[in-house]
Amino acid sequence: MRAAVFHGPGDIRIEDRPKPEIEGPEHAVVRVTHTAICGSDLWFYRGESDREQGSRVGHEPMGIVEAVGEDVVSVEPGDRVFAPFLQSCGACEFCRKGLHTSCVNGGSWSGADGGAQGEYVRATHADGTLVRVPDRYADDEAVLRSILPLTDVMGTGHHAAVSAGVGAGDDCIVVGDGAVGLCAVAAARRLGAERIVAMGHHEDRLSMATAFGATDTVAARDEAAVERAQKLTNGGATHVVEAVGAASAMEAAVEVCRPGGTVGYVGVPHGMDGLDLYPLFGDNITLRGGVAPVRAYADELLADVLQGTLDPAPVFTETVSLDGVPEGYRMMDEREAVKVLVEV
Amino acid sequence: MRAAVFHGPGDIRIEDRPKPEIEGPEHAVVRVTHTAICGSDLWFYRGESDREQGSRVGHEPMGIVEAVGEDVVSVEPGDRVFAPFLQSCGACEFCRKGLHTSCVNGGSWSGADGGAQGEYVRATHADGTLVRVPDRYADDEAVLRSILPLTDVMGTGHHAAVSAGVGAGDDCIVVGDGAVGLCAVAAARRLGAERIVAMGHHEDRLSMATAFGATDTVAARDEAAVERAQKLTNGGATHVVEAVGAASAMEAAVEVCRPGGTVGYVGVPHGMDGLDLYPLFGDNITLRGGVAPVRAYADELLADVLQGTLDPAPVFTETVSLDGVPEGYRMMDEREAVKVLVEV
Repeated sequence: MRAAVFHGPGDIRIEDRPKPEIEGPEHAVVRVTHTAICGSDLWFYRGESDREQGSRVGHEPMGIVEAVGEDVVSVEPGDRVFAPFLQSCGACEFCRKGLHTSCVNGGSWSGADGGAQGEYVRATHADGTLVRVPDRYADDEAVLRSILPLTDVMGTGHHAAVSAGVGAGDDCIVVGDGAVGLCAVAAARRLGAERIVAMGHHEDRLSMATAFGATDTVAARDEAAVERAQKLTNGGATHVVEAVGAASAMEAAVEVCRPGGTVGYVGVPHGMDGLDLYPLFGDNITLRGGVAPVRAYADELLADVLQGTLDPAPVFTETVSLDGVPEGYRMMDEREAVKVLVEV
Repeated sequence: MRAAVFHGPGDIRIEDRPKPEIEGPEHAVVRVTHTAICGSDLWFYRGESDREQGSRVGHEPMGIVEAVGEDVVSVEPGDRVFAPFLQSCGACEFCRKGLHTSCVNGGSWSGADGGAQGEYVRATHADGTLVRVPDRYADDEAVLRSILPLTDVMGTGHHAAVSAGVGAGDDCIVVGDGAVGLCAVAAARRLGAERIVAMGHHEDRLSMATAFGATDTVAARDEAAVERAQKLTNGGATHVVEAVGAASAMEAAVEVCRPGGTVGYVGVPHGMDGLDLYPLFGDNITLRGGVAPVRAYADELLADVLQGTLDPAPVFTETVSLDGVPEGYRMMDEREAVKVLVEV
């Protein structure tokens, strides 16, 4: 089988690798038909985080079940499925709490299970990980394109909005205009926010934010931008999403948060020396969030996508084949694409 | 009038100062009868934070109302009252939300209003700040001693437990065995926690924690202590209080917090270069808290003190007169006292 492999910063290659096999009763092997390149993939691509050379990459799989172990009950060969960026057992304390990212049995798509940017992956806990797409939508390419973001960025944006406590009638500020920030805007609208201020660096992405439901946009994140967001919300919003994971974004998020409010954060903390707690302390600003348990949200978000009330597909501004994955990384790295879809 | 005045690190003196007067319709002048020395006073005392030389100190006033402005309706001359460590108007958006520490009209006990370690203070928003003690308890010295911690440490410990989300039947770990940590233990018990693990450095204070309701105590905060707390709670508690404000305490609090749990923090962030968010991110640990709006909790805590179900008085392990305030600072600084009560 062919798969994308990391060989060092800036060096992704498509190579032949062993196809994963069923080796346990809870396993499933999925032939990947669609996957994506993630903003978090850029960190090892840029050499900003460590990754083993020769390792397979990608963590947003969608495809057709090819084989299942004898204990698997929720999917069978031929089913269209997708899966979150982490595997989960679905049965431990944390999975039952909806915190699948802290699953005591789960793990990443890597090693023998394969990275999702390749022809096959193996789910080691198929029932707790894979989400089945109803048959009537299983071959609808337009619908599949709208479902694919549920593997990561849409669930992550939703987690950010939920963590920020967004509810009906609320004001919300979203810091960050990447794919996660855009999905957070869509999530905040879906949760009933009335005013949604999107703060970002790129006019084209802020236009997308408006299409996703932002009522106001603020370009840049400097002091003038913070003041403008504060003015739009009469002194800051009680619900703020930090969707970047960089120190400057977190500082801006805290600055535009109203006393007693909550910053929901989902960007992997990245390049931060450490967060100064003092600005949060003085105004009792809560910091809530973390790596998003997107498996917990998959069913409700899938229902909305299928009924046409949620469509994150526009985050995919470029599409490549598996052979085009290295070019997809380059486009993401150079910000030519918000997010790249891979047709395997 | 006589008052304690800061002249530099380690140098507190009792001096004559102008008595504050009624200068506005919402003012009240209170003759201070009881006050206290706070752990946070030690920071300027030790030279670890800046404070203007010649400034009056103290922020935990209890006393008798001497005079009121014409618009004051909730207290009158002769009433026994106490007040939180910050003044608040009681009418702005944040006071109405119970976040009196973000009051847009309030402020500290300092300057012309006077510090609380002195014979008189002026409340500039008497109705929003002062809490009246019912007449039948107004001269009961034992009861007053139990009420006095409501000016700061008891309300702060309660805020920590509330921020950590402690409720009936919960496990809770309290990091810190100072007065606030001890009060957090009492608050957690009051909120119905079943298992309360107190972590601290001092055996004598941990014995007090047991008297306040801790079911288990763990001495020290090193890795062995963290492991012991984790073992006692089968992998960490969902509700953790950080009652110190130091980096080591915050790190320990995060380490003993169960995935998906909350660290309630009330220690002024102090000597921290910045908090590493990564350990919180991976396990979706919420950080909630800040400077405690003790005015919001005064009525419910006062009711419990008066009915005898809450008694934080044991935090006062030493009592001094106003002339003894400098000695009180020394005892606090050298950890000879948990907290010092001042009879003015």
